[in-house]
Amino acid sequence: MIIGTVKGTIVSTRKCSNLIGFKLLLVEPYYGNKKNIFVAADSIGAGIGELVLVTTDETTQHALDKAAPIDAYIVGIVDAPPQTGK
Amino acid sequence: MIIGTVKGTIVSTRKCSNLIGFKLLLVEPYYGNKKNIFVAADSIGAGIGELVLVTTDETTQHALDKAAPIDAYIVGIVDAPPQTGK
Amino acid sequence: MIIGTVKGTIVSTRKCSNLIGFKLLLVEPYYGNKKNIFVAADSIGAGIGELVLVTTDETTQHALDKAAPIDAYIVGIVDAPPQTGK
Amino acid sequence: MIIGTVKGTIVSTRKCSNLIGFKLLLVEPYYGNKKNIFVAADSIGAGIGELVLVTTDETTQHALDKAAPIDAYIVGIVDAPPQTGK
Amino acid sequence: MIIGTVKGTIVSTRKCSNLIGFKLLLVEPYYGNKKNIFVAADSIGAGIGELVLVTTDETTQHALDKAAPIDAYIVGIVDAPPQTGK
Repeated sequence: MIIGTVKGTIVSTRKCSNLIGFKLLLVEPYYGNKKNIFVAADSIGAGIGELVLVTTDETTQHALDKAAPIDAYIVGIVDAPPQTGK
Repeated sequence: MIIGTVKGTIVSTRKCSNLIGFKLLLVEPYYGNKKNIFVAADSIGAGIGELVLVTTDETTQHALDKAAPIDAYIVGIVDAPPQTGK
Repeated sequence: MIIGTVKGTIVSTRKCSNLIGFKLLLVEPYYGNKKNIFVAADSIGAGIGELVLVTTDETTQHALDKAAPIDAYIVGIVDAPPQTGK
Repeated sequence: MIIGTVKGTIVSTRKCSNLIGFKLLLVEPYYGNKKNIFVAADSIGAGIGELVLVTTDETTQHALDKAAPIDAYIVGIVDAPPQTGK
Repeated sequence: MIIGTVKGTIVSTRKCSNLIGFKLLLVEPYYGNKKNIFVAADSIGAGIGELVLVTTDETTQHALDKAAPIDAYIVGIVDAPPQTGK
């Protein structure tokens, strides 16, 4: 999974019917190239500035109640910035 | 999902039978390396210059009426350029 | 999907039985880093130098008559070099 | 699969219900760009500093008892640092 | 699929039960960034120094007798180094 920071929201009025009801958030990767911002669907209520855990590709479907064309899905809010020092 | 800008269309006369009927659009990533242009299928009528939301890999299938060899699919038109400032 | 140019063929005598019968072509990406040449299976008769449309990962299976361990599959021949101007 | 080094743990109190019970570890790639740290779920007890084998995307599901939104899963502990010299 | 050169083997004593019996090989990409070495499972007997054809992600499953958490699988030995001239 990817750790990212929520940077904003995306509004799409004309969209696939099975995307209706999902909040679409802009997520900036916490590690690696921060320029590779992507859009993740959310249903646990992540807010701007929060650190989130995102799962990708077909594995997103295992967190959904029914299938949807979503390749990045917020599956958790990270409690505290990760520590990788040792 | 990826946000991208529609830059053109692709015509392929000789193609898999289950690609027939899909519009094939060139999409330039809005974030990250703009040189990584790819082809996405569309059925919601995105036009050149419009900002679109693209889902990838097997998750595309959840937006299709029947299975097709499509690994990038336009699932929404983005209303306004994303704001990531804060 | 990826647009690429067919650059050559690959011969593999010792291979998985469900790869038998597929032509294996070397494909150079048309956009992005041209060094990332990959192998795509083909059954529509693409020739060296031709511009092709390639689908990837599990979506390849939707173009196959039966399942095969193929993660890149040529699903179309592109009629003319893409125009992305404007 | 990817070889990586376990660098830390991630705590997420608010998360998808089917992620409950998995340990979430920060993994640094052993090869390639070490900055691309990611989160992998673990159930075999990898510890910080250990070298692990990680499988990705939907293939993670074949190591799980039931489906979960996990796109990186630790499937083995590597006995000794890999030798690639020849 | 990816063409790669077998550079070594990986031993993992503590691993998922459905990885038992697979040989785990270190594979260096032939094209692109050679530093992105990865681990592929093998059951056709590839040896160190040999050029192999690797399929990735969920498509690996179509070469396996039963499902396994393997995202890179050697599906062929390449007869001769690829020629991409012209």
